[in-house]
Amino acid sequence: MSELAFIDWLRTRIARDPRLAGGGRLRIPPGDDAALLAVPEGEVLCAADMLMDGVHFDLRVDSPRLAGRKALAVNLSDIAAMGGRPTACLVSLALPKNGGRALGEAVTEGIVELASTHGVALAGGDTNSWDGPLVVNVSILGAPPKGGPVTRSGARPGDVVYVTGPLGGSLPSKRHLSFEPRLAEAELLVARYGVTAMIDLSDGLASDLRHVLVESKAAALLEASAVPVHRDVGEAYGVLDADAALAHALGDGEDFELCFTVRPEIAARLQAERPDAAWKGDAKLSRIGVVVAPKDTPGALAFTDGRPVPNLGWRHALT
Amino acid sequence: MSELAFIDWLRTRIARDPRLAGGGRLRIPPGDDAALLAVPEGEVLCAADMLMDGVHFDLRVDSPRLAGRKALAVNLSDIAAMGGRPTACLVSLALPKNGGRALGEAVTEGIVELASTHGVALAGGDTNSWDGPLVVNVSILGAPPKGGPVTRSGARPGDVVYVTGPLGGSLPSKRHLSFEPRLAEAELLVARYGVTAMIDLSDGLASDLRHVLVESKAAALLEASAVPVHRDVGEAYGVLDADAALAHALGDGEDFELCFTVRPEIAARLQAERPDAAWKGDAKLSRIGVVVAPKDTPGALAFTDGRPVPNLGWRHALT
Repeated sequence: MSELAFIDWLRTRIARDPRLAGGGRLRIPPGDDAALLAVPEGEVLCAADMLMDGVHFDLRVDSPRLAGRKALAVNLSDIAAMGGRPTACLVSLALPKNGGRALGEAVTEGIVELASTHGVALAGGDTNSWDGPLVVNVSILGAPPKGGPVTRSGARPGDVVYVTGPLGGSLPSKRHLSFEPRLAEAELLVARYGVTAMIDLSDGLASDLRHVLVESKAAALLEASAVPVHRDVGEAYGVLDADAALAHALGDGEDFELCFTVRPEIAARLQAERPDAAWKGDAKLSRIGVVVAPKDTPGALAFTDGRPVPNLGWRHALT
Repeated sequence: MSELAFIDWLRTRIARDPRLAGGGRLRIPPGDDAALLAVPEGEVLCAADMLMDGVHFDLRVDSPRLAGRKALAVNLSDIAAMGGRPTACLVSLALPKNGGRALGEAVTEGIVELASTHGVALAGGDTNSWDGPLVVNVSILGAPPKGGPVTRSGARPGDVVYVTGPLGGSLPSKRHLSFEPRLAEAELLVARYGVTAMIDLSDGLASDLRHVLVESKAAALLEASAVPVHRDVGEAYGVLDADAALAHALGDGEDFELCFTVRPEIAARLQAERPDAAWKGDAKLSRIGVVVAPKDTPGALAFTDGRPVPNLGWRHALT
């Protein structure tokens, strides 16, 4: 679709569904050179993710609607990881010339459905055509939680490490296309319990928890048997021994669960109150380890039995 | 470069150049799941543009630094068109695996240089590698002007139409890669003169002015001889008759000058005070026509001698 057709389509959608105007936050909707968004908090969280056909999804087998959904969902997960609430998104598409119109509509449909669910305003974007594959970029704006965002740098020795759900096997099961970003869970954890550090698990627990530890100048010990392995691992890879299954949970990535740390007294409250008893789907709290003072360089990650955690996780190959 | 290497590179740059922290607005810098930006105005302008190799630039002949510069510049132009001031940007890159590290650094260098010039905070983004060509998406945040943004919908019959500089020939001359976004000019016009509608000229005057007229439910008459033709047209296409030269000015696109409307009494002040006498480079005010009431459908654009303005301008081809 042309730029104007895309904007007209967005406008029609916003007129039909007020949730796509972000509960009145979208003061100037798409169709001008820029949209205007109300920011009553005086501060805005912002992040962006670019997804490409053949890398983050595969249109030979995956639906364009789910590709669009994922492009927004990974951004919502970034806002969840800061304890924030998403308010608006900008969508940019590079569409193949051949079939790009229907593809663009399907991708945007997937974005709009998820945006509406979470009351995220569609603040506009950009559509283009070319001879290359589909590229979707979503930029997200969000409101920080009262008390300020949760960063990666606040973990301290003694803190307890949690994850919000089982890990591994997300790619073969296609869970990476349909996961539910842990927005409500994060908001509750931050508001009622206090979270010292948080990250969303995109590259894999081993890799992402190391980011938290490096930023927090800390180390951690993981309880191997406490790391929750998703049933998708067994379904995709068959019966595995504990170490092999654990490797999938640590390294597969694209889980989009949250990994967070809390002070030990908060951990005791979490274990007693079990707020996750009311959570839906796979979401469930697992206490997986503790933060310790680093012996030498920050970021060291070992199992409680002393073995080092293998350096697994997704990295982009570039020369 | 990997995601982490990119973030480290950005952080080093921000540490060296405080302008890249947006004058203290960047409360949480890149490196977390999302950045936190101060928005003292309580409202934020936002827009996005995606640029692809082979469409918006051509890395066989164009430098990656200028490709990056353009990706930010077109976004700054969008903020200028609202009368706003840019505050922060998010940069997403899809980099070819082969040579992507050096390419990513060069592209980002071009973005960083222009961002620093305008005090635009680098709020982060996303880097990816793939087997496809370079794709750059920049999302921009900005502060609206006092009194609110200038939209496309405020032009009224009797308003006078201006452009901020000469048009045409931007692609062959490569001006589209190195243009100066009209931020300061727009800010002055909006603050001191009052502007009823504004748009930046990306698709070409004939096409973009029609957007203003459609949104404003108006029509316009253009003075053919008053439309400023850029010297790049002659340099690229040789000696042309007036109509042929005008067609380039109306339809080539990628000028990134601003087209705006003012009330007639303001036009008289502009002609008397000539604020553009102090402007640099190509920037110069040209009074090119008047807004009139539409006879039938809004958006009609004709010359003052009665001929219709040809329907020129860039459109993305999609099937």
